[in-house]
Amino acid sequence: KEYRGAPTGTDIECEGWRQEAALRMLNNNLDPEVAEKPEELVVYGGTGRAARSWDAYDAILAELRELDDEETLLVQSGKPVGRFRTHERAPRVLIANSNLVGKWDNWDHFHELEAKGLIMYGQMTAGSWAYIGTQGIIQGTYETLAELAEQHYPDDDGLRGKIVVTGGLGGMGGAQPLAVTMNHGVCIAAEVDEERIDRRIETGYCQEKTDDLDEAIEKAQAAAEAGEPYSVGVHVNAADMLEGMLERDFVPDVVTDQTSAHDELEGYYPSGYTVAEADELREEDPETYVEESLDTMERHVQGILDMQDEGAVAFEYGNNIRGQVEDHRGMDEAFDYPGFVPAYIRPLFCRGKGPFRWAALSGDEEDIHRTDEAVKELFPEKENLHRWIDLAQEQVEFQGLPSRVCWLGYQAGDAPEEHRDGGGTTAGAGDDPDGLTERARFALRINELVAEGDISAPVVVTRDHLDAGSVASPNRETEAMRDGSDAVADWPILNALLNCAAGADIVSVHDGGGVGIGNALHANNHVVLDGSDLAAEKARRVFTTDPGTGVIRHADAGYDEALAEADESNVAVPMRDRE
Amino acid sequence: KEYRGAPTGTDIECEGWRQEAALRMLNNNLDPEVAEKPEELVVYGGTGRAARSWDAYDAILAELRELDDEETLLVQSGKPVGRFRTHERAPRVLIANSNLVGKWDNWDHFHELEAKGLIMYGQMTAGSWAYIGTQGIIQGTYETLAELAEQHYPDDDGLRGKIVVTGGLGGMGGAQPLAVTMNHGVCIAAEVDEERIDRRIETGYCQEKTDDLDEAIEKAQAAAEAGEPYSVGVHVNAADMLEGMLERDFVPDVVTDQTSAHDELEGYYPSGYTVAEADELREEDPETYVEESLDTMERHVQGILDMQDEGAVAFEYGNNIRGQVEDHRGMDEAFDYPGFVPAYIRPLFCRGKGPFRWAALSGDEEDIHRTDEAVKELFPEKENLHRWIDLAQEQVEFQGLPSRVCWLGYQAGDAPEEHRDGGGTTAGAGDDPDGLTERARFALRINELVAEGDISAPVVVTRDHLDAGSVASPNRETEAMRDGSDAVADWPILNALLNCAAGADIVSVHDGGGVGIGNALHANNHVVLDGSDLAAEKARRVFTTDPGTGVIRHADAGYDEALAEADESNVAVPMRDRE
Ligand SMILES: NC(=O)c1ccc[n+]([C@@H]2O[C@H](COP(=O)([O-])OP(=O)(O)OC[C@H]3O[C@@H](n4cnc5c(N)ncnc54)[C@H](O)[C@@H]3O)[C@@H](O)[C@H]2O)c1
Ligand SMILES: NC(=O)c1ccc[n+]([C@@H]2O[C@H](COP(=O)([O-])OP(=O)(O)OC[C@H]3O[C@@H](n4cnc5c(N)ncnc54)[C@H](O)[C@@H]3O)[C@@H](O)[C@H]2O)c1
Repeated sequence: KEYRGAPTGTDIECEGWRQEAALRMLNNNLDPEVAEKPEELVVYGGTGRAARSWDAYDAILAELRELDDEETLLVQSGKPVGRFRTHERAPRVLIANSNLVGKWDNWDHFHELEAKGLIMYGQMTAGSWAYIGTQGIIQGTYETLAELAEQHYPDDDGLRGKIVVTGGLGGMGGAQPLAVTMNHGVCIAAEVDEERIDRRIETGYCQEKTDDLDEAIEKAQAAAEAGEPYSVGVHVNAADMLEGMLERDFVPDVVTDQTSAHDELEGYYPSGYTVAEADELREEDPETYVEESLDTMERHVQGILDMQDEGAVAFEYGNNIRGQVEDHRGMDEAFDYPGFVPAYIRPLFCRGKGPFRWAALSGDEEDIHRTDEAVKELFPEKENLHRWIDLAQEQVEFQGLPSRVCWLGYQAGDAPEEHRDGGGTTAGAGDDPDGLTERARFALRINELVAEGDISAPVVVTRDHLDAGSVASPNRETEAMRDGSDAVADWPILNALLNCAAGADIVSVHDGGGVGIGNALHANNHVVLDGSDLAAEKARRVFTTDPGTGVIRHADAGYDEALAEADESNVAVPMRDRE
Repeated sequence: KEYRGAPTGTDIECEGWRQEAALRMLNNNLDPEVAEKPEELVVYGGTGRAARSWDAYDAILAELRELDDEETLLVQSGKPVGRFRTHERAPRVLIANSNLVGKWDNWDHFHELEAKGLIMYGQMTAGSWAYIGTQGIIQGTYETLAELAEQHYPDDDGLRGKIVVTGGLGGMGGAQPLAVTMNHGVCIAAEVDEERIDRRIETGYCQEKTDDLDEAIEKAQAAAEAGEPYSVGVHVNAADMLEGMLERDFVPDVVTDQTSAHDELEGYYPSGYTVAEADELREEDPETYVEESLDTMERHVQGILDMQDEGAVAFEYGNNIRGQVEDHRGMDEAFDYPGFVPAYIRPLFCRGKGPFRWAALSGDEEDIHRTDEAVKELFPEKENLHRWIDLAQEQVEFQGLPSRVCWLGYQAGDAPEEHRDGGGTTAGAGDDPDGLTERARFALRINELVAEGDISAPVVVTRDHLDAGSVASPNRETEAMRDGSDAVADWPILNALLNCAAGADIVSVHDGGGVGIGNALHANNHVVLDGSDLAAEKARRVFTTDPGTGVIRHADAGYDEALAEADESNVAVPMRDRE
């Protein structure tokens, strides 16, 4: 099967750029530079797929090539299942992946359906065609670690002199060593699959590899003492590595993990096996595999807890390893260390801030450099953002379609009444910045640059499913919400419906993702900036509604930052506004 | 607290009829004629509410009164949580009720959240402001029995000359005798609670009552022989009645049941007790009650199976009595008779047919009579439909806003290519019926009548959540799907997103409903026919996309009727179309 990544350039196969954007983003998800196993349609995160089968993939492309500007394609768990007449302001593609009725919303039933070819695991951005390779996650990891450093080492220069220990150098986890060194720190990462380490080294995400834990610790300590950034991948099981470190009385400053622990069968590797041996065991005796996998996780979590007891800053990095050992091994103390969202991300969500990303459909890196300039010009006061853009230009290689990610929020400022909720006009960013959210200001500026020909082809703007108002995930994004509403899934559904109403070009709703089936519900959207007035109108609306649902969701839960944001930016909070 | 039903007449409180329709439908749900416990905001189905609290209710009304034609209100489990700028073709209200992340999707967690004021049970049409009282139930029962007659007695005049035996004359079950006689048949219904029988007789739903089974059988046989409709409530336990019939070698033509067997403690009555005795037993010794109740159910199901063996047509009417005896008594053979959906409703779903309903916002009964005429004029060939409309006019009292329900489907006929998927124009029904679905033809005609002033105020068209493409519910609407996809919930989510894209005026997504939290996911929508071109455009699109998702959902599962419908009506089924 051919998978060569997205078509590039300014000639299009489809009737318009909105359809072409969907086609290119889907193919970009399967670019061998971007996807983990494109031959199996797997993009990242264990089994997160872009399409259900190659036949389904072919049919999606064929449909997109024919889809007109008033039609909408329906994709059900990676398979195109319908096409209906809608209108220009409606989405061109609607996607629902991996959703199950609650009582059946578990891996057993999912796998049964998967075996019958009736469902696909969409993960987060895999099934919504918005994955942009490790660069997508690197900025989130960078931002999380920067926030960690600010909270725990406020007087230091980021993570300089600190050692971060972690596991997993896969699609997302592979960003960790680079994100640590970008924050000036030292990273030791366990990875059982040597090829994965090699790949991170080739692409500049990790500096060295070793089989020898003593060597890793020694070099790490030397670098930390010298205040030098350094990263090393250790070819070992993460649980074994943590125990090895504790035996050697080595306690890092920070400990976390990004092995695919959310999936005990296809994601996580049990101790005592090489990758090849484990893969064989999985085939031959999946039940034993699962038991051994969970046994290893138990030791893994114990290692993290022990390090925390010894003074390390510990946090779970969204792979549900705590939930796994709590559910399957009754290990409730797993939740004695926090998830990364309540610890470091939620204050940003309250402001509607989340990982906003965009890709140049031209394939031309210059287009992204132009957007880099634009974002710096638009937000001259945001130092962190400038540092990120500079570092990304230097150190982050493009994979597939050139793209960029940064965190932008609502923060519309005190909007005049007629511009409340983003106003109703299609003005560009320059015309009247009042009442425009950060995201809308940026998107409208890019749309202008496309219109003026400064950017050679349309740019598609999308985001992670992990965003302010788009996800219910009690073990990750909505862990320990102030009002206890962690599991309420009305919010991502409203987010998807509202963005659909506001005119996003693709809207998707997924069950599962990084924390596994039945553990989260989340939504995503794409807006295609083709320089037209219609695109400006859509961008203005969607980049108000999308971060806006983050503000109202957190305001409803009673977070002061969200209530302050609602007040400052004039976001309607009906019950409160009428008190 | 005041709850006086919907405002009526042609003066409106809101900025437009779309907002006014939402306001009136919400209030109609709480009309004392319509709702079970309006003082508690409970509409029907145990605890199905229209708003989370009276404060939330007040805030919703206040928001609706201010909402402009380019804004969208967000309602999260009965509470207004946001208001954003969208556009004219977008919905005015988006609703998500009772949705929980899979692992937490159960009554225990729901009740915990409810106690904290964070969620509300939306049932189906309660939380989506589309309940219209008992007439919805009668028509569903009527349609089910009409379909049964068509399948089993194709050469007869409905159920004329046939005897239907059932149990339970409660809120929903009480519709059975009338639905049988409307189909010209004879009904014998067991009911332990004499007051319930009396109530059905008072309101004209049942003709006579007796304590004497011999008398009931005799009169029923006489009526059946004469081809006369007849109904009798027998004051007896249903299990005892079936055994008594078998002892007398009496086998009815059809046997079913609507006692509240889904709840063995508070719904179903054990044999050997009067209602008063059983109520006392329930209080004093609930465990014994449950055992005796399940023992009776076992005999009850055995009676149905024996009658089936003797040639009766048997089906379960959605009360889960089969599941109860399978789960608690290991009686697997219970499932030897089918549920009503796979047996009688699914063939309709395959054609996109479902319970379509509309209400006259004027409050004027004449407006509904005008729609009655219109539907008969539009579908002169549909005898069943004509009979239903005539009978409903005669026998079904209006409750709250005058309204009507009937089953309409896709069935667009062989549309010319340019009208595939409903075409793109805003033509009225008369202009070019080709390519219009049944539902769209009807809605466009009503819209014309409103425009011409033949109907005095706008009409809102909505439906049950139980519809062709809008629900995943493995114990009811999607029981025993041909491909095993019963629990796949991507479909109702796509239905909601697509109807939102197509321009429905209210769109809602609910977890739960009649089968309980975690057991179903379903969507609904409203379209307001105010006589405008915009309303015509929305109606044309939504009444194509909505039944259309029913056709594609069943086509995807491999149903011949759905594939035939897709062929006949030119509904795109992407994978198949490209084979
Ligand atoms: N935003 C977030 O919340 C967030 C961000 C990043 C990752 N995650 C989660 O982190 C996990 C990793 O994601 P990914 O895309 O990198 O997955 P992946 O499957 O591509 O990579 C996982 C890697 O872990 C390695 N591994 C598995 N078990 C191991 C063990 N016991 N010891 C050492 N190495 C082991 C595998 O060889 C693989 O390289 C997932 O669970 C994902 O959901 C969440
Ligand atoms: N669409 C559907 O799937 C659908 C439609 C209608 C009803 N139902 C189901 O049917 C059942 C009835 O609903 P309802 O609203 O009428 O409930 P209800 O509780 O109002 O009425 C049940 C009636 O059954 C009687 N009854 C109980 N046990 C009996 C017994 N052993 N013999 C004789 N009578 C007995 C009770 O006295 C009561 O009048 C429920 O389980 C409901 O969920 C489902």
